[in-house]
Amino acid sequence: MSQALDLIGIFVFALSGALVGVRRRLDVVGMTVLAEMTALGGGILRDLILNVRPAAFSSTGYVVVPAVAAAIVFFWHPQVERVMPAVDVLDAAGLGLFCAVGTEKAMNYGLSPLHGALLGVTTAVGGGILRDVLAGQIPLLLYDRQLYAVPAMLGSAVMAALYTLDLHGWPATLASAVLAFGLRIAAMRLRLRAPLARGVASDQGP
Amino acid sequence: MSQALDLIGIFVFALSGALVGVRRRLDVVGMTVLAEMTALGGGILRDLILNVRPAAFSSTGYVVVPAVAAAIVFFWHPQVERVMPAVDVLDAAGLGLFCAVGTEKAMNYGLSPLHGALLGVTTAVGGGILRDVLAGQIPLLLYDRQLYAVPAMLGSAVMAALYTLDLHGWPATLASAVLAFGLRIAAMRLRLRAPLARGVASDQGP
Amino acid sequence: MSQALDLIGIFVFALSGALVGVRRRLDVVGMTVLAEMTALGGGILRDLILNVRPAAFSSTGYVVVPAVAAAIVFFWHPQVERVMPAVDVLDAAGLGLFCAVGTEKAMNYGLSPLHGALLGVTTAVGGGILRDVLAGQIPLLLYDRQLYAVPAMLGSAVMAALYTLDLHGWPATLASAVLAFGLRIAAMRLRLRAPLARGVASDQGP
Repeated sequence: MSQALDLIGIFVFALSGALVGVRRRLDVVGMTVLAEMTALGGGILRDLILNVRPAAFSSTGYVVVPAVAAAIVFFWHPQVERVMPAVDVLDAAGLGLFCAVGTEKAMNYGLSPLHGALLGVTTAVGGGILRDVLAGQIPLLLYDRQLYAVPAMLGSAVMAALYTLDLHGWPATLASAVLAFGLRIAAMRLRLRAPLARGVASDQGP
Repeated sequence: MSQALDLIGIFVFALSGALVGVRRRLDVVGMTVLAEMTALGGGILRDLILNVRPAAFSSTGYVVVPAVAAAIVFFWHPQVERVMPAVDVLDAAGLGLFCAVGTEKAMNYGLSPLHGALLGVTTAVGGGILRDVLAGQIPLLLYDRQLYAVPAMLGSAVMAALYTLDLHGWPATLASAVLAFGLRIAAMRLRLRAPLARGVASDQGP
Repeated sequence: MSQALDLIGIFVFALSGALVGVRRRLDVVGMTVLAEMTALGGGILRDLILNVRPAAFSSTGYVVVPAVAAAIVFFWHPQVERVMPAVDVLDAAGLGLFCAVGTEKAMNYGLSPLHGALLGVTTAVGGGILRDVLAGQIPLLLYDRQLYAVPAMLGSAVMAALYTLDLHGWPATLASAVLAFGLRIAAMRLRLRAPLARGVASDQGP
């Protein structure tokens, strides 16, 4: 069950990576690399920091699913672009799931709540950052003012707090994931925006 | 013997890194950083994922050889540019060697054939990706449509298959390396190209 | 004491990261990510290569101080820009400290003097490289011809030499740090410049 949710999150993240590949006119190799890195990069960073072998390198599904996503985008990217609003909702679900699961894993390995939450956020957003760096772009997360990292931070913080209260296992994970998911959806619907530094005019992009 | 081959591969990869440094008008520090990262980056990524100390940090030759390559390019880059066709052949040899050696090392550490082959490809192409990211370019591998990763994939897959059949040691490594090398040379000679996503016109670069 | 010096170095590196964020018009999330990565990135790279859990993930101060620096820059960046000459002096102090401390830690973990010094330089300059890659720029270190890495190399080399002579502990660290600091300040005052490859005209940037 949790494995199935993981794979859905990985699939959706991989779709976003492969689509960036199409938009940047990358070839099939580039699309596949972006799909894999977007989907698996956050978890790999988390596991490198925890000093354990990355989960992606002991699961067949984790490697195959992004390749399937890249193949789908390769053949049907116009159709995938059309269903992007639905993909964005699934992406928010992946964000919620990965920040909760990442925080829990980090705390299982003995990190403090602060560092556990930090690593949970890294799990959720690290793949997207690697995707953009590889695609030659400033990571969207750093400038687009959408609330993407903030819901992950709050979800991770709640997971860390529940863990500290000895509430872990799937109900706590699910509650934290749903919270981050709900906040992300609310931020999209309400067009909430992260502030720029004081005095910086907001009419131009980087 | 295997050590000497390794050092030749490292030297050639370092030349390509230092040359990118010259073309991008980097200073001597930048040239040296690119030479070291191009030559050693793939192996460092592999070893970080295997959760062992990177081989580059326990070998003197691995660190000194790229610095020598950077010094040669510093003084004689026009001459090095002139012999690039020969360097490309040596680069193909490095590609073949590193994908085979990387796959074998990964499987020695208990990875599955699928993950071993994946890490073999990472060993072979990771340094070039880091080189381009540090030089402020989209990694060539992702868009230039040359078959560079694909020969490494096939060589790694053959190495993984041989390993599964209990055929490891230098004959298997050599066979896999030669296969990847030959495919890379064939791809260059025949100008084989990786496809773009369906419907994407091929007349413009990213 | 050493902890306090560390935190000052981290604070100053984080200021530089957050300022790059303002100049690139990133939002508050981007500023905070750049502050954290600039301050902690070099040490995280060092610890990943040493195959130990990064120090940043077991210290509260290491995570909180860059966030405070980002908040200060968020509200008072014009004032921080005005005191940049002073910040540059503190940055040189951080450079000196981190190269010495990084080399010592690496040698404590059994690396050779060569590799210890290399990892000391990585500790000192790695955060700045990550800052620039994330901000979509070629790392300043690779092209700006200032002597920034070179003082760190010399400080690290002296630390490694002292360590080999069994002179470690704070006097050796302090001496190496002060040496690198002094060289960096001298390089700034005297406008010393790293050379470009032979024959490359120096009138254009990358």
